[in-house]
Amino acid sequence: MSLDRAATKPHEALSAILSEDMDAVNALIRARMASEHAPRIPEVTAHLVNAGGKRLRPMLTLAAARICGYDGPYHVHLAATVEFIHTATLLHDDVVDESAQRRGRPTANLLWDNKSSVLVGDYLFSRSFQLMVETGNLRVLDILANASATIAEGEVLQLTAARDLRTDEDVYLKVVRGKTAALFSAATEVGGVIAGADDAQVQALFDYGDALGIAFQIVDDLLDYQGDPKATGKNVGDDFRERKLTLPVIKAVALADGEERAFWQRVIEKGRQEEGDLDHALTLLHRHGALEATRDDALSWAAKAKTAMQTLPESELRTLLIALSDYVVARVN
Amino acid sequence: MSLDRAATKPHEALSAILSEDMDAVNALIRARMASEHAPRIPEVTAHLVNAGGKRLRPMLTLAAARICGYDGPYHVHLAATVEFIHTATLLHDDVVDESAQRRGRPTANLLWDNKSSVLVGDYLFSRSFQLMVETGNLRVLDILANASATIAEGEVLQLTAARDLRTDEDVYLKVVRGKTAALFSAATEVGGVIAGADDAQVQALFDYGDALGIAFQIVDDLLDYQGDPKATGKNVGDDFRERKLTLPVIKAVALADGEERAFWQRVIEKGRQEEGDLDHALTLLHRHGALEATRDDALSWAAKAKTAMQTLPESELRTLLIALSDYVVARVN
Repeated sequence: MSLDRAATKPHEALSAILSEDMDAVNALIRARMASEHAPRIPEVTAHLVNAGGKRLRPMLTLAAARICGYDGPYHVHLAATVEFIHTATLLHDDVVDESAQRRGRPTANLLWDNKSSVLVGDYLFSRSFQLMVETGNLRVLDILANASATIAEGEVLQLTAARDLRTDEDVYLKVVRGKTAALFSAATEVGGVIAGADDAQVQALFDYGDALGIAFQIVDDLLDYQGDPKATGKNVGDDFRERKLTLPVIKAVALADGEERAFWQRVIEKGRQEEGDLDHALTLLHRHGALEATRDDALSWAAKAKTAMQTLPESELRTLLIALSDYVVARVN
Repeated sequence: MSLDRAATKPHEALSAILSEDMDAVNALIRARMASEHAPRIPEVTAHLVNAGGKRLRPMLTLAAARICGYDGPYHVHLAATVEFIHTATLLHDDVVDESAQRRGRPTANLLWDNKSSVLVGDYLFSRSFQLMVETGNLRVLDILANASATIAEGEVLQLTAARDLRTDEDVYLKVVRGKTAALFSAATEVGGVIAGADDAQVQALFDYGDALGIAFQIVDDLLDYQGDPKATGKNVGDDFRERKLTLPVIKAVALADGEERAFWQRVIEKGRQEEGDLDHALTLLHRHGALEATRDDALSWAAKAKTAMQTLPESELRTLLIALSDYVVARVN
């Protein structure tokens, strides 16, 4: 508790405060991802689960439960549940089509074949399902079932919406909730529910996770057009080359004149990209203030997250979750 | 109730008796597979769900609940749950790898790409999850969570076991439970649980579904080596050409001498098949009585199913489920 918080990133400080709980989560994840009979399962999951990542989602669950005063054992089950769902969706995102490979897109499943990615993902989903049933809490099951449906529907929606210029900001939000925010909001909400928090607190936790997830994804989309490759690990224009209709482009398309619209149709819908198209896209984005408007949206979602969290009882964890919402947008602010 | 049962197949007679319940199941399936936002979802599921199939699994749930005297609404939810899980696993089985396509194996997902098969399958899983949560019955959720894990683990196990001559009958049974029997047994078991049946009845329903599913799959494997293509719709030797280690081959491998073992290694493990290999495989299967022994196993599992069902209260539905266990093995008896 005596860490120098000023020099520490919020998720690192969270990880330090929650380290005992996180150890329990990691032990549970290791125990449940094992399979007595199918050695392929730990082979596939090990590089995903051991690599660790930031474990942001399980930390959200643990923090939410603790903020609401929980001292039972099941926040650990729910945190592991959320991480398993996240890992399963990563595996299913790894599935690629021959045509996609042929287009020269980097394939995510170089290590494992499609079939293993699908089936091991299914295994992790079923493991997460067992973990949540163990909590014996029907409301938690209801929340996670609905989140699963939102995630799957958003992922399917993205298949058709990503290259369709009719995709508007409403559809974009549905896709973003599916890709990111639905699991964030379920992660925080179930933490409150398992702690027996009142309805207003549970709603605030949902709102925080939802807004944080949306801010997170919008920042990601924005950095694809204006990030520093060294800091983001992404090349500028990756989304553009993959013909993904993200928020900056949706905003520019909404304000496009006939000629500009024809440009977006050619490069996004038809995929006939030529030398210099990315530069022209950036010109159009700047002309319509699309990057600034996208940045404003991200800041506004981060502010919503902060406002929601401020209604919860004051604590060090609450302070860190508020700091996290600032941190998520700091890269574009 | 006045149908001429003697001239009717058991599953057709079940379908007739349960027609009101099945209408409710079909209406629920149609309502829940819809998606307001993602039109790709009904496009993909329509051909699977409307084509109908025999709807064997949901009928097992309905019949089990009715045999145990249930008159509430939730057997319909559970029947739809079971059908959604079945359809989702079919979609995930559709996912293929480029290498598999190159080997000239017929691809199951000609209509839809891998990504759609995975994500729409996930959507159906999440829909099934919502349906079972609506029953508010934690024991049902526990059974279905465990069945999901058995299914996924069996499917992954099959990836590595199917071409490995060390695969024995124990491993084969695990794979078969994953592919078929775990969903059959969960289908019947949850029907009893939702009806509030006592432990012995629930166990009998589980045993019936488990044994029926195993008999069903063994018959399928056997027909691949000795079926009439006109009746089965399968060519003799499909599994052999796909290098699948099914029960007849496992039995022949267990009794193989050195030369025979080398043959199986070449054709199954290494996949270097030549003209005349299928005939030689059939010779070896006959030499060791492997087809007869496989048939005996199927009959023995069907008998187990029958014995389990006979412990339940007598009724027309019970008679039909007993007839169903005979019918499943009639093709090889």
